[in-house]
Amino acid sequence: MQLLLAKTALERVKSRLNAIAPDLDIVAVAGADSFERGGAPLAADQVDPDLVWTSLDAISLMPTIMGKVLGGTRVKWNQIFIAGLDMPVWKSIVEKGVRLTKSSAQAVAIAEYVVGNAVSLILPIDRQRALQAEGTWRNTPYREVSQSRWTLIGYGAIGKEIAVRAKAFGVDLTVVRRAAGPPDDFADAVIAQADLPAALPESDVVVLACALNAQTRGMANAAFFAAMKPGAILINIGRGALVDEDALRAGLERDQPGHAVLDVFAVEPLPAEHWMWDHPKVRVTAHTSNAGQGTLARGDTLFLENLKRFLAGEPLLNEASRAEVGL
Amino acid sequence: MQLLLAKTALERVKSRLNAIAPDLDIVAVAGADSFERGGAPLAADQVDPDLVWTSLDAISLMPTIMGKVLGGTRVKWNQIFIAGLDMPVWKSIVEKGVRLTKSSAQAVAIAEYVVGNAVSLILPIDRQRALQAEGTWRNTPYREVSQSRWTLIGYGAIGKEIAVRAKAFGVDLTVVRRAAGPPDDFADAVIAQADLPAALPESDVVVLACALNAQTRGMANAAFFAAMKPGAILINIGRGALVDEDALRAGLERDQPGHAVLDVFAVEPLPAEHWMWDHPKVRVTAHTSNAGQGTLARGDTLFLENLKRFLAGEPLLNEASRAEVGL
Repeated sequence: MQLLLAKTALERVKSRLNAIAPDLDIVAVAGADSFERGGAPLAADQVDPDLVWTSLDAISLMPTIMGKVLGGTRVKWNQIFIAGLDMPVWKSIVEKGVRLTKSSAQAVAIAEYVVGNAVSLILPIDRQRALQAEGTWRNTPYREVSQSRWTLIGYGAIGKEIAVRAKAFGVDLTVVRRAAGPPDDFADAVIAQADLPAALPESDVVVLACALNAQTRGMANAAFFAAMKPGAILINIGRGALVDEDALRAGLERDQPGHAVLDVFAVEPLPAEHWMWDHPKVRVTAHTSNAGQGTLARGDTLFLENLKRFLAGEPLLNEASRAEVGL
Repeated sequence: MQLLLAKTALERVKSRLNAIAPDLDIVAVAGADSFERGGAPLAADQVDPDLVWTSLDAISLMPTIMGKVLGGTRVKWNQIFIAGLDMPVWKSIVEKGVRLTKSSAQAVAIAEYVVGNAVSLILPIDRQRALQAEGTWRNTPYREVSQSRWTLIGYGAIGKEIAVRAKAFGVDLTVVRRAAGPPDDFADAVIAQADLPAALPESDVVVLACALNAQTRGMANAAFFAAMKPGAILINIGRGALVDEDALRAGLERDQPGHAVLDVFAVEPLPAEHWMWDHPKVRVTAHTSNAGQGTLARGDTLFLENLKRFLAGEPLLNEASRAEVGL
């Protein structure tokens, strides 16, 4: 059984891989259309993998690796480093009969981004730094994170990590999923997307952490912002196309929301002339909320766990449904 | 039985107070040496309370209220809004035979300050804001809060709230108490102060949340800073005198610590000419970490709960031991 993976990834996991599956035919991608087996070059026509790992460190090699998935004759499983399956290539892969498993490895870092930014905006840190800069000793009363109300749209691996951290701060957390459901240890309420208009006027923080699909595209539109609580914080770590950026700009003028923290945009990289760069109420980051130092290692562990499960015929973690890729 | 409390506090809790103890002789402090009973002025010599509530909103009335505690002939219990009992007045009160109960109402706000500041320094928020200011789209890799190592010195009400939030971020938490003990749901290790030198070199964040007493005064001295991990964050929300400020200044020059977040100081207000105001590695705040909007309401609830317990002869929450006031 042939496994295709990036050479850098192989170097990290080699001994753990051998312990799990000593008999695999391991083919490493050393560069664009460049393959190796056991350290020796291997002709491209010898590469027809059963299993493929598209790891985070292989972004520049994606055309080569995905070419072997789409062009292969016997690929059964592909572990990827991505959580959101809105790119058409994932649909093509699943259509071909390949089992696709998403990554949850970035969830910890993205949750830190979301909760860290929200807390740093709710606390009077900027006000305190300004007082320090002018040498003023003054109390800074503030509305606590505790008992603030958050609405979290999307409750996959990333949403769960956000919920754990928010709950520890005593947040009143409403989760929005495809269908309403019972509360859990972290979510005080679980509502459907249709019930969002009732939740928005009460929410101090609104987080977009959902997949981009026909139901969610452009969901943060003029009506959404008009329903938001003045001064609330919007955070988007899902996909840029969840947000109507013109409607956001108009909303910010009315303080609905009062702040936007955005890691994803309709067009990336964000164009140099885009209004968001200079907007005083917008934090722009470069689709980098996943860039915690632990993401790579968690991705390695996830791949190895899923490999073990695949070889044992057990259910895979984070396997994409046909609906998730738009089938 | 006479209860003395601030008029503003009485106005907030009146109906809840009447429900708990309808027969109390309630005396309100309306201003400096100015008392009222049932809205009518009351001569100072008529005020000799059994129970006294020194609430957070009564700071300016403390000389009047504490005068009645120290000068009273029958005070049995005093609920205060303070957590740290280093001021000599608390010793005098306990020596007099008055039961003294501390406040835990500020714990939530102070924990938000500690964890919010630590997370905002660990995450690359400042770096991202600088990139945004110059219009640069660039990844910002960073070392996650998850699995960072924190040492929390002091594990009272404030320390516990810090621990809950840190643990949700996946922090490896060592707690320092008077005596070592078993780990709990939040603390991975509980060590004694004598073991601190071994913990400091491994700690990414060190929080001073302990009482000021003979054992802790000046504990953050030259040896302490020399043992710290370069680049680590020091946070002090205990008392200024826990820290040797000259030693801190020398430590900051060597990046031990890399940042200091200080809400308390040897002299408060921090003198205008103090070096900390302008130090790029120091965040100065005005002994205001308690100033969350929930602190006052939590203090009301704590007083009413302790009043119920006092009247029922049950153990009081947060009762100070003789050792805590230096007896």
